[in-house]
Amino acid sequence: MKLILKKEDLNKGLQTVQKVAQNKNNNLTSENGLLIKAMNDVIEFQANDYDMGIKTIVPGIIEEKGEAFVANPYLMELTRKLPSDEIEITKKDADTQMIIKGGKLKFECLTMNPNDFNEVEILENGYSHFTTTSVVLKDLIDNTSYACATDVARPIFMGTYLDVQGDTISMVATDTHRLALKTAPLDTPIENPLQAVIPSRLLTEISRQLPTDIPEPVEITAVRSYLAIKFGNVYIRTRLIEGEFPNYRRVIPTDFQCSITVGRSEFTGAVERASIVAKDAQYNVINFVFGDGEIHLMSQNPDYGTIEDYVACQMTGEPLEISFNGKFILDILKHCHDDEVVLNTRQNSPMLVQDKGNEASVFVVTPMRTK
Amino acid sequence: MKLILKKEDLNKGLQTVQKVAQNKNNNLTSENGLLIKAMNDVIEFQANDYDMGIKTIVPGIIEEKGEAFVANPYLMELTRKLPSDEIEITKKDADTQMIIKGGKLKFECLTMNPNDFNEVEILENGYSHFTTTSVVLKDLIDNTSYACATDVARPIFMGTYLDVQGDTISMVATDTHRLALKTAPLDTPIENPLQAVIPSRLLTEISRQLPTDIPEPVEITAVRSYLAIKFGNVYIRTRLIEGEFPNYRRVIPTDFQCSITVGRSEFTGAVERASIVAKDAQYNVINFVFGDGEIHLMSQNPDYGTIEDYVACQMTGEPLEISFNGKFILDILKHCHDDEVVLNTRQNSPMLVQDKGNEASVFVVTPMRTK
Repeated sequence: MKLILKKEDLNKGLQTVQKVAQNKNNNLTSENGLLIKAMNDVIEFQANDYDMGIKTIVPGIIEEKGEAFVANPYLMELTRKLPSDEIEITKKDADTQMIIKGGKLKFECLTMNPNDFNEVEILENGYSHFTTTSVVLKDLIDNTSYACATDVARPIFMGTYLDVQGDTISMVATDTHRLALKTAPLDTPIENPLQAVIPSRLLTEISRQLPTDIPEPVEITAVRSYLAIKFGNVYIRTRLIEGEFPNYRRVIPTDFQCSITVGRSEFTGAVERASIVAKDAQYNVINFVFGDGEIHLMSQNPDYGTIEDYVACQMTGEPLEISFNGKFILDILKHCHDDEVVLNTRQNSPMLVQDKGNEASVFVVTPMRTK
Repeated sequence: MKLILKKEDLNKGLQTVQKVAQNKNNNLTSENGLLIKAMNDVIEFQANDYDMGIKTIVPGIIEEKGEAFVANPYLMELTRKLPSDEIEITKKDADTQMIIKGGKLKFECLTMNPNDFNEVEILENGYSHFTTTSVVLKDLIDNTSYACATDVARPIFMGTYLDVQGDTISMVATDTHRLALKTAPLDTPIENPLQAVIPSRLLTEISRQLPTDIPEPVEITAVRSYLAIKFGNVYIRTRLIEGEFPNYRRVIPTDFQCSITVGRSEFTGAVERASIVAKDAQYNVINFVFGDGEIHLMSQNPDYGTIEDYVACQMTGEPLEISFNGKFILDILKHCHDDEVVLNTRQNSPMLVQDKGNEASVFVVTPMRTK
């Protein structure tokens, strides 16, 4: 193999596959590392583990075909610092060493047998298929998957539910204490409805890869217990979580006693301050009194003291006293974007939070019993 | 007690004492926390532990005299986020709570008995005394103390040696594998020579406090086994390490076989790249061949491969092959400032590194045996 690549293309290729190539949870050698493959007319970088496979095409000149299987966690750090913009990568088929040259630097990098690399499977004959854009998909992921559970006891809640029906794409995540739902329209309605629970940690990695400077088309295909995701030069295969995701629509409350409209940044500031002393205590409990014209916040920590604060608001309905985990409220406010947010509550019931005048995002949070 | 302070003054006062107030190594309640004292005409913030005591004066209005002993690690995070520029702090002598008010926020902060706080001792009758500036002192600390040992087995090397004689102030730190020495002139010669070994971790904290925007006079007095350091509104008392610091002048080599002048940033780049694969192996060994017109660097890692690089240089003397710990070389280069550095070496002997045309800083590093 002999390749000539630009430093930035090499680094972009490595950056795309590195997270999968260096999965720390992986003890199988064949699932660690990456494959550089120039057997046909393109230079491909691949990484593959049990959960996720990723491959990308990198521009460059193939002077001699070949492939190399490299498991070197420092490769990217090194190539980023190479003292030249043009990089030469060579490997004789018989050698176990791949040679990287840039400027006067020469790195003889140890490699493994490429036959031991488990290539990324191209999924075919999907039962369902739709197309969206990178910007829409990233927005859906970033505004929902944070709300999933981290507790392995209930694997289904470690995933984010993708629900595509007709001309609507929805994503939902919940840890049973709070829920985040976001919907977006589809340009072309889907033929066969698609429901899948995607491990949230894979979505985080997919979100990192999605380009946001200009919207790029993303094709998603469901095949058996996998999803195939294609955009630009990147192809990703992800495992799905098996099992039934609960009916999230039933969890969203509709009957309220009190509706509050409050400035997002003022409210965020007050919740942040109340959380400072509360976070060290168990559960970060903040007590809210939603009143006419004012929200009263109170939190306390037996070691440090009591904090009280007030934020101006508009209220319709009846005043109400209720307690929430401050971290959950802050998580929601971080994912709101309008100047004002609307809080819809009822005594001892889940609260519905939304940006004012935006129905696409829905947040639900259950109160805490303090008595 | 009733005080009115500006938020920025309150935060500056808390920031000055916080590190000492929250010494995690400290299990004594009376050595954790800070004292707010307004018993006379000034508002003082104090923190004090076995190693270091610090006090500072904060501008503000004293409406009622008093004091409060607070041990709340979140106090600063909270006051920084208070929704008002004017803060009121009150405490009734009989109460255990101090009340902080800013805007509509009210924080009832638990306090301890001020009689349990061990006030920062003002050291008097020093045996030696000198004055320098904050900029000079910070420069001396930052360019030497990093080279000290972190190994508690030999406490003397966990300190930085301050050596003031005549019109020269020197600081030296070594972990026996490398040494950093920096000297600066004194405007007014010292009367009685001053030698003291200051714990390096205290110097790091002192360096953080020293103002660098404009040079401020710093007064240093040696009293028994302590130093007193005064600048601006800040007074610091630090413990010294007892024992004799070795004669550092004897360690600095003077007889060389080869002298190399090399561009600092090119050389740094090459050492960084060679370190990337070597750092994971034991000791981060880099092999250097100092030759006529070129330095050849080589490092290897049994798991990842071998890296070779070349940097242009000027040489006088004889070519030489020698190995060093790459981390030590990078540490030195990070503290060089000129465009070019000079490396003076001899086979199997410590290497002397200096900025070209600057004798004030001296770095010594011992080679590694590789055979």
